[in-house]
Amino acid sequence: MIDWQSKGFEIAAAVRDGRTSATEAVQVALARIEATNPALNAFTAVTADRARAKATAIDQMRSAGRPLGPLAGVPFAVKNLFDVAGLATLAGSKINRDHKPATADAALVQRLEAAGAILVGALNMGEYAYDFTGENVHYGPSRNPHDPARMSGGSSGGSGTAVAAGMVPLALGSDTNGSIRVPSSLCGLFGLKPTFGRLSRHGSFPFVADLDHLGPMARSVTDLALSYDAMQGPDAADRWCAQKPVAPSLPSLDTGIAGLRIAVADDYFAATGEPEAHAAVAAFAKALGTDRRVTLPEAGRGRAAAYVITASEGANLHRERLKTRADDFDPATRDRFFAGLMLPTDWLVQAHRFRAWYRARVAEVFREVDIILAPATPCTAPKLGQVMMTLNGVEMPVRANLGLFTQPISAIGLPVVAAPWADRAGQLPIGVQVIAAPWKEDLALRVARHLEKTGIAASKAV
Amino acid sequence: MIDWQSKGFEIAAAVRDGRTSATEAVQVALARIEATNPALNAFTAVTADRARAKATAIDQMRSAGRPLGPLAGVPFAVKNLFDVAGLATLAGSKINRDHKPATADAALVQRLEAAGAILVGALNMGEYAYDFTGENVHYGPSRNPHDPARMSGGSSGGSGTAVAAGMVPLALGSDTNGSIRVPSSLCGLFGLKPTFGRLSRHGSFPFVADLDHLGPMARSVTDLALSYDAMQGPDAADRWCAQKPVAPSLPSLDTGIAGLRIAVADDYFAATGEPEAHAAVAAFAKALGTDRRVTLPEAGRGRAAAYVITASEGANLHRERLKTRADDFDPATRDRFFAGLMLPTDWLVQAHRFRAWYRARVAEVFREVDIILAPATPCTAPKLGQVMMTLNGVEMPVRANLGLFTQPISAIGLPVVAAPWADRAGQLPIGVQVIAAPWKEDLALRVARHLEKTGIAASKAV
Repeated sequence: MIDWQSKGFEIAAAVRDGRTSATEAVQVALARIEATNPALNAFTAVTADRARAKATAIDQMRSAGRPLGPLAGVPFAVKNLFDVAGLATLAGSKINRDHKPATADAALVQRLEAAGAILVGALNMGEYAYDFTGENVHYGPSRNPHDPARMSGGSSGGSGTAVAAGMVPLALGSDTNGSIRVPSSLCGLFGLKPTFGRLSRHGSFPFVADLDHLGPMARSVTDLALSYDAMQGPDAADRWCAQKPVAPSLPSLDTGIAGLRIAVADDYFAATGEPEAHAAVAAFAKALGTDRRVTLPEAGRGRAAAYVITASEGANLHRERLKTRADDFDPATRDRFFAGLMLPTDWLVQAHRFRAWYRARVAEVFREVDIILAPATPCTAPKLGQVMMTLNGVEMPVRANLGLFTQPISAIGLPVVAAPWADRAGQLPIGVQVIAAPWKEDLALRVARHLEKTGIAASKAV
Repeated sequence: MIDWQSKGFEIAAAVRDGRTSATEAVQVALARIEATNPALNAFTAVTADRARAKATAIDQMRSAGRPLGPLAGVPFAVKNLFDVAGLATLAGSKINRDHKPATADAALVQRLEAAGAILVGALNMGEYAYDFTGENVHYGPSRNPHDPARMSGGSSGGSGTAVAAGMVPLALGSDTNGSIRVPSSLCGLFGLKPTFGRLSRHGSFPFVADLDHLGPMARSVTDLALSYDAMQGPDAADRWCAQKPVAPSLPSLDTGIAGLRIAVADDYFAATGEPEAHAAVAAFAKALGTDRRVTLPEAGRGRAAAYVITASEGANLHRERLKTRADDFDPATRDRFFAGLMLPTDWLVQAHRFRAWYRARVAEVFREVDIILAPATPCTAPKLGQVMMTLNGVEMPVRANLGLFTQPISAIGLPVVAAPWADRAGQLPIGVQVIAAPWKEDLALRVARHLEKTGIAASKAV
């Protein structure tokens, strides 16, 4: 039977086989939410009625002998920057409470539900996604199920909390500079940040048009692949969405790693971070049989470029709100937005110019290797409210530096699977980035699946 | 026989038929340059030896019975931002004199020469192309052959002067905000600014990566089409160059205007400008049998967006020179570059955001019409040194406002043929923009050719 620790693919198989029903799967999720959410604060809205109705419809389809989708009966929830019909799309803000409720679901919610998944609610997040901590002054912090006094990581903090606590087996997040990979690492989850432009952003509240990615978080690679395949494909409503045909990742998921050239990122990615961040990478590399090293040239500048683009474009997006409702922002985001409005254009042009150079150099690296491993976060989950941390003797702000290793990768839109290191019994989780060349999500998923099968990567609801 | 007033296609036909030789064609050009350039200041370098050698080679090919290219024996010259092997690429500056000589010709020079055309030299221009006047503090102004006390228009001022004076039948210019169309209008020439991304910019000195276009100026539409067709096609060396197959414009050039929906731009494009600018447009519209009007929504903001993008990207390109050699800039460009370095990023992000909106709206307009007519310049050539002008009772700077009507068009990369109004005997020339949808250069050329055949548009060396 299924329970709150069941993975999505297990639930879907049980629903298909009649060992459970979609209604029961939803009931398990709602009960777990009721039991754990008050203490962990993952959800900002639970759509119980909608979920039960959808579950009933799926169970009726099964009774009628009609074919069920690959995610039939799998409960999921979405970061509250996804439109959910009937809810105001908060994007973690107080200001957006005044928005009218969305009249339709976001494109990816529609696609997951078309595959049989069942939306059970909307999840807490850092204000306007400008966050790596999962803290939120308006709605309280998303707490880490592994230690509720610690951060879930952000900005998809509620997504991390909900999946790690077993409230749902699957959640959607967004990742502009690391907001899927950071909470995946701190909460011990698998997370997929696809190639920039791969998944439709239609019906989601934006942050940085040039950097925003949407993607799934789960406790198994199979769930990432199933949901990713269900969400793929062009969307005429999103002009940023690539006109790429669907390229399912599932058929090759279990084909192993033979023939793949795998290397560990050195230089920038080895220069700082707690020992466990690098131990995780080393364990992955050993399991994959590689001692190869590779350098992403000027990765630090790649991160700087992402900062400048984020600050500039993010601030421009919010300029009217900054003018009229400055006091309703979280002070932790407001000051950075104001600063972003006033950067000199020379920085932004230079950031874009550099990024084009960096993208071309990294493309050259991917002629030599297929997969690059790097830490996902420089440390395990900090305590809630912790402002500063010390890495390799250097004191630095927590908020900005949890994304130390993720920003140089998303800056150029590479696909990444964040995978949690299994060897953490009794310790806080930490993850590794499995990075592929653009449009090669299938390779990153294959490698992560191999690591999961061999027991080096693992995720468990707690 | 050919003379300095001969057009390119006439010279090529005469060379092919043996009525003249490439050597003679070059001699005519060099003699005319010698006679008129000292007073008009179009050339910064004359490549006489190279031209004679190339002419000899073509004449030998003909003697040997080998096929000649469509531009065989046609002398041409290029704005001095095109690389010419053996010359430093000045881009109108003093600073670039210190650059090493180019080791290869620019891609478009290579393509024209591959079609049989013969380079005879490099042409004066406004410093770093940030100019609409054709004035240059380092090299002196390009003078207008119709009145040497007046501006040629810029920044392709030398190109305008050289073609209008009959020194060459064909020249290449560049157009970021109007720098082909403005001198074409003030000098009474046909000029083609192709769709953004159509022609390779490899081997040219840039100004604004996002807005720079290269293209030909001539005294006949046939010469535009011949040279444009010779220059078309992808170029792997230029990442901005579209991967479009060659789509020759010549086959349809004389097929007339039947079936084309043609309209005059109203609103912004009718709101200011001297009477002759609008009389030219009205004469073209009458000849084309249309009284249709069309609005390019928010064209004024389109111009503003082009300004902000130009100032920001142009300044970033020159930042090191501005830091180290500020005194070697023309004061007329230096202060604008410095200002460009310090614009707030919010403006630039907003400019790009607006431009995407504007591009989409104009695409909708082009579902209703095929060709849009608008003035090329708001007035005829101002006097050299003239700083201010009055349009519709409003005093404004000459330098910035000669591009009043060109900037909103190039801002979104539309193809344009600037065509000179024939009815200007004894008066200064003025031109009209014949604007088409992206990648529809052939339609703009067809309409311009129809106007030329019917005598409404005409260009003559003076």
